[in-house]
Amino acid sequence: MNLEAQLLALLSQIKPPSQTAQELARERQDSLTKPRGALGRLEDLSVWLAGIQGTATPKIQAKAVIVCAADHGVTAENISAYPATVTPAMVQNFLAGGAGINAIARVANARIWVLDVGVAADLPNHPKMISKKVRYGTRNLRVEAAMTREETLKALLAGAEAAKDAIDDGVALLVAGEMGIGNTTSASALTMWYANTNLEQTVGRGTGIDDPTLEQKRKVVQEAVARAKQTVQTDALTGLQELGGLEIAAMTGIMLQGAASRVAVLVDGFIATSAALVACALAPTAREYLCATHVSVEPGHLAQLEHLQLEPLFNLGLRLGEGTGATLAIPMLEAAARTLSEMATFESANVPKEG
Amino acid sequence: MNLEAQLLALLSQIKPPSQTAQELARERQDSLTKPRGALGRLEDLSVWLAGIQGTATPKIQAKAVIVCAADHGVTAENISAYPATVTPAMVQNFLAGGAGINAIARVANARIWVLDVGVAADLPNHPKMISKKVRYGTRNLRVEAAMTREETLKALLAGAEAAKDAIDDGVALLVAGEMGIGNTTSASALTMWYANTNLEQTVGRGTGIDDPTLEQKRKVVQEAVARAKQTVQTDALTGLQELGGLEIAAMTGIMLQGAASRVAVLVDGFIATSAALVACALAPTAREYLCATHVSVEPGHLAQLEHLQLEPLFNLGLRLGEGTGATLAIPMLEAAARTLSEMATFESANVPKEG
Repeated sequence: MNLEAQLLALLSQIKPPSQTAQELARERQDSLTKPRGALGRLEDLSVWLAGIQGTATPKIQAKAVIVCAADHGVTAENISAYPATVTPAMVQNFLAGGAGINAIARVANARIWVLDVGVAADLPNHPKMISKKVRYGTRNLRVEAAMTREETLKALLAGAEAAKDAIDDGVALLVAGEMGIGNTTSASALTMWYANTNLEQTVGRGTGIDDPTLEQKRKVVQEAVARAKQTVQTDALTGLQELGGLEIAAMTGIMLQGAASRVAVLVDGFIATSAALVACALAPTAREYLCATHVSVEPGHLAQLEHLQLEPLFNLGLRLGEGTGATLAIPMLEAAARTLSEMATFESANVPKEG
Repeated sequence: MNLEAQLLALLSQIKPPSQTAQELARERQDSLTKPRGALGRLEDLSVWLAGIQGTATPKIQAKAVIVCAADHGVTAENISAYPATVTPAMVQNFLAGGAGINAIARVANARIWVLDVGVAADLPNHPKMISKKVRYGTRNLRVEAAMTREETLKALLAGAEAAKDAIDDGVALLVAGEMGIGNTTSASALTMWYANTNLEQTVGRGTGIDDPTLEQKRKVVQEAVARAKQTVQTDALTGLQELGGLEIAAMTGIMLQGAASRVAVLVDGFIATSAALVACALAPTAREYLCATHVSVEPGHLAQLEHLQLEPLFNLGLRLGEGTGATLAIPMLEAAARTLSEMATFESANVPKEG
């Protein structure tokens, strides 16, 4: 099957969650030993999980973070506070267990895989490493399409395959994380393309750039989007191909595969939500499988969430990426699931009811 | 040692957290493999824990929830949607593992104890039960002091002792939870007393009362506070004695003991924060050991948090109590601690720095 056909096959598998299971879960919540609605948003999350898993007592067995890594040709434009060599160095750090995402994943008891779809360096083999390098970084999106259509599809499908393997392994809650110096520039351009935001509300300081670099980054994003608009838009993939990153394409694939396999996906910050924009442009129903977790410091994140009509769970001023904010939310989802499957009902616990 | 002397001894042990450890932790955060400040509030939490534990690499070994249970004489005024018999029934539910707090504590891997300081029923022995019943529920706070001074001290010190035992057992993060039909009425009166709030912003629907019951609850709270104001205020304990609950006194003791033993305490919703008001009135430095976790639906909660100048971590529309919201926050605190002790530095991981 060629790449286009593989993507179409993936998209065609995405069906709405089960309304019946949602209704049963809501009924069950109302029978549990607590005042009706007293667990607030946690009850909504439990009902959401029920719809996805098609049962009133959803379970979250294994959890996984797939950290998608790739480099960006646009770093030639000096838009980042860090050199591109940080990308492979951080990949090594992920594999050694020393990054922020490792510390947080240990708390959440989530597995970590690193998916290399485009790091501009050769990386060692490692049990946690999935090597699917499409190319050594994207092209410079200011001056040309970041990827060919074939590269875009390859990276997206590599993400989908990694997600499928994790799901086959028992994973019931997925986080798509990322590492890629330069990727807030790509994510900004994608946000303008897919969510119709303006430059000022979209472009932020990423890892922490100074004012002149921010000015330069704005200019680059503006030129990139203007350039991309000159191209022939064939379908919802065009924006990703023109302005995206290989890791963002892979994250899009993870989200689509989650939706296709009826597995919940937690959405991290600005980069991850730009992948969510692409996923929902390709398959609007994929949105039903996505849970926004936190609000990033990056200013464009709120605009993305509004566009997708996703409501985040908390705002802790995070701006690290890697999947850290989404992984921090895993215990909340587990708690939500456990209320449905583990709490006693008024009847079973012999607790007097209201009135 | 008499009860008054025991309380004074407890209060005199409360010293400020270590500024040196806080500074070292902040420096360490700035050396870890992430852009400076990129973990936002999580970094602040890690520094807070460092100050409390007196080390730049704080550890959270065991975690515990102590659910304080007691009944309220004020239920005679028909201010609750549930009969008082729910209190002992829910205690049984906690012991059997079927309540909301049980499900959430399992996710957080936190131990649970139930501390009976005043349930109006005889309760069975159980390994998780700490029996320190002071009396079978408080008196009706609308018409008389809820407790005598001796009862107040006994309940408070029972909480402190339970916390001390948990801490001696290795617990490094404490949650004070509660169960007690009628206790939002008591908490409302305490909030007006200790935080000078007005009736409308303070009294809410608790477990979910209808409009006429809300009207009645407002009247009862107003009369109770007016009555208490006629009494001779001897010290910061007077409000608790006049308007409190036995379980709220016990929670106050847990918070004070946490501060005295340099152990972090996570504050749950409206009832727990009313105990925090009392604890901070008795020992203002205790505030440095408290972390607000969530915003309750109960309207008076925000006023309490403002009075204490504590900033919550999330708002999920919870209003269950039992310690559920605070326990939901445990993984965030663990993640914060682990960043300091487990993340690599730029130097150790050989990651290129900014610029």
